[in-house]
Amino acid sequence: MDVVIVGGGAAGASAAARAKRLRPEANVVLVEATEMITHAPCAIPYYVEGVVGSASKLAMYSAEDFEKSRGVRVLTNAKALDIDLDKRTILIAKSNGKRETVKWDKLVLATGALPKPPPVPGLDLGGVFTIRHPAGAVKLREELHKASAVAIVGASYLGIEMAEALLALGKKVLIVERSKQVMPSLDSEIAGLVAKELVARGAELHLSEELVELRGQGRVRELVTSAGSYNVDAVILATGIKPNTGLAERAGIKLGVTGAVEVNEYMETSAENVYAAGDVAEKVHRVTGRRVWIPLAPTANKEGHVAGTNAVLGRALRFSGVLGTAITKFFNLYVGKTGLTERETRELGLNYRATTISAKTKAHYYPGSSEVTIKLVIEGSTGRILGAQIAGYDDAVAAYLDALAIAIDRRMTVEELFFADLGYMPAVAPVWHPLITVARVLMRELL
Amino acid sequence: MDVVIVGGGAAGASAAARAKRLRPEANVVLVEATEMITHAPCAIPYYVEGVVGSASKLAMYSAEDFEKSRGVRVLTNAKALDIDLDKRTILIAKSNGKRETVKWDKLVLATGALPKPPPVPGLDLGGVFTIRHPAGAVKLREELHKASAVAIVGASYLGIEMAEALLALGKKVLIVERSKQVMPSLDSEIAGLVAKELVARGAELHLSEELVELRGQGRVRELVTSAGSYNVDAVILATGIKPNTGLAERAGIKLGVTGAVEVNEYMETSAENVYAAGDVAEKVHRVTGRRVWIPLAPTANKEGHVAGTNAVLGRALRFSGVLGTAITKFFNLYVGKTGLTERETRELGLNYRATTISAKTKAHYYPGSSEVTIKLVIEGSTGRILGAQIAGYDDAVAAYLDALAIAIDRRMTVEELFFADLGYMPAVAPVWHPLITVARVLMRELL
Repeated sequence: MDVVIVGGGAAGASAAARAKRLRPEANVVLVEATEMITHAPCAIPYYVEGVVGSASKLAMYSAEDFEKSRGVRVLTNAKALDIDLDKRTILIAKSNGKRETVKWDKLVLATGALPKPPPVPGLDLGGVFTIRHPAGAVKLREELHKASAVAIVGASYLGIEMAEALLALGKKVLIVERSKQVMPSLDSEIAGLVAKELVARGAELHLSEELVELRGQGRVRELVTSAGSYNVDAVILATGIKPNTGLAERAGIKLGVTGAVEVNEYMETSAENVYAAGDVAEKVHRVTGRRVWIPLAPTANKEGHVAGTNAVLGRALRFSGVLGTAITKFFNLYVGKTGLTERETRELGLNYRATTISAKTKAHYYPGSSEVTIKLVIEGSTGRILGAQIAGYDDAVAAYLDALAIAIDRRMTVEELFFADLGYMPAVAPVWHPLITVARVLMRELL
Repeated sequence: MDVVIVGGGAAGASAAARAKRLRPEANVVLVEATEMITHAPCAIPYYVEGVVGSASKLAMYSAEDFEKSRGVRVLTNAKALDIDLDKRTILIAKSNGKRETVKWDKLVLATGALPKPPPVPGLDLGGVFTIRHPAGAVKLREELHKASAVAIVGASYLGIEMAEALLALGKKVLIVERSKQVMPSLDSEIAGLVAKELVARGAELHLSEELVELRGQGRVRELVTSAGSYNVDAVILATGIKPNTGLAERAGIKLGVTGAVEVNEYMETSAENVYAAGDVAEKVHRVTGRRVWIPLAPTANKEGHVAGTNAVLGRALRFSGVLGTAITKFFNLYVGKTGLTERETRELGLNYRATTISAKTKAHYYPGSSEVTIKLVIEGSTGRILGAQIAGYDDAVAAYLDALAIAIDRRMTVEELFFADLGYMPAVAPVWHPLITVARVLMRELL
């Protein structure tokens, strides 16, 4: 059996390793367009910041190590050009310049996502960067270290992480965001905590400003928005990404309503024997049942696991969808969400109740306690938890979010959360745990 | 309506506050045998260690503050002597030496637990301590600061916490434990991590040794066990506690199989209009459905909440039982459990599968990552998670345990855990979260 996987990121590497493990006799080939596989784009801000010292750490495995440890054949610098669904072949431009037609019995598309820069003049100037693939990280770091005033366009997860990196390096940092708050995917009171921290650390916030143009001669010198003009010597476009569907589209594979490749719970595409996994694939939201495109690494890993399993075993595993659990950190402030925000809930027309509390992360008498803010959104009629947002100064709050992700996934009500048997000792939580406290507040409203 | 609550600890204070809040017109009286209410016995080790500077922090509220803020009448140094179930009265010995008969329409018993020292000679010598109530903490701290070699009898949660305190103070510490491992409530491989850390920090471990006698003239000087004799100048008896059921028993209120006061899910005892909550009350284990006695503060708080609610509103709330989630810390090592251990599962005759993994708490390239060990026990036939144990060097692992407590509570299977949408970013987890990794290992066995 020939299994070809296109894309060596989280989903592709996961699918390849899984397929080979379950079917050692299969011929598993991983086709990757760059020289890196199992790369970690999430590490780029920390490589720029210097928290991660070496670019070699931006990938889990080298192609050689992966070949050896997993028994998967890896083609790097190999671009997948076209798929022939009838003949079950794929045309690949290899690193030596030659083209090769590779046959497959099962094909997994894991081509990931591409940056989606805003359509403005000046994108091709020097000093203008998008951040997506670690392959460009060394050059990015060099250039940013030389810069003195850097504008970040887009104040979502990546923008915030790059802001930390650049502020830590002592750069002047301007953040340009077209919506009226930073972290537009969060509700305003949680996002406001991030904005406060950004300003406290020295970032200059330009909210409700749309990027209009980048100006300069050869190199960017000026950033023009709907509200003003700013002198900069580097610009990071953190304005989001789009699914890299070109290869799938050319083969006539169906895209879903979100523009990503449509897949069912087995990660099967509209084409027989072709799977898609990771950022290129559409997902189902577990709370709403709707099709969404929330491209995140853990999802990619799991979808790759499912696609790789099913490619060699048939319909053995189902991917159960996403909650959009996402977290980031700005210096010591951890912030994230899982499930629906209040705004999303309102837009869906659901009957809901929401509350936001602040609490301490340890017993009142125990040193090192910090504040955590939790917002919970519940269904009005049933008390079922629909979504949660968290901001706090202790890395444990990320795990609070995970606990809530499990609660939402398992359709827990706020009363059931109140009675959850969470652990207590003075150094790890107050005797009324913050998660119990937020449940108690909402329960009181229900009683 | 007269509501009398006996015992001013977690359960009693919670019940009193709740009853008054829901029925402001009720006359709510809280009867406490010591001078402190809302006391936190869990803080005692940290007060001894000096992490908590002032004894005033060993209580959340003074009696005066609680009276003012909650509108509850508080009688301190008031001992409840006898209950008359027919006349609905309780006889109280007050602080001024007088006795008073107080009438009640609803009575909540929250008399807590008492130390259960081993029946050996020498318990009344000077320098021999049990640790239960913060009222004795100032003297305890003074005495222990003067001591140089301290034996701790019992290596469960409290014993481990006192060991940290005394080692941090530079004392010679002997730990005497009659079972063959420390932390007898955990499986041996997890407990072994604690033992290793105890030894690394300088504690002298005496496992499989039973306390036989304490010797000295007026003051303890020698501790004799089944295996040896040791010179000490202080002894801490951390050999467990028992429910303080005397008052209930004298009134003819039924005790359960565990020896604690039998209650139903409404926290009602066998006597009409009498509730019990907290350490004095029996609980139901949510995994096994069996009656257990696992006395912990968060349970006490919630049971008090339920008892206080139902005392004034009738059967408004149900307490859904416990998982026995417990966590402690020994210096930087956090260790805990929720649900069943492998040993408990085996003793129940259940068909199960278990695995233990070690993983990093952050991305491999992110600094400050530490190791966490997770043991998961699942039902063999269904894959349902029955129990989890965790040991690790990051306070986030306590929250991992909480996530697993919710998973167990909501009858999550290991496959569902694998697909849980947990958050990821390099500073808070590897892209395969440790909880996903442990699920993956067990899933592989199932597939």
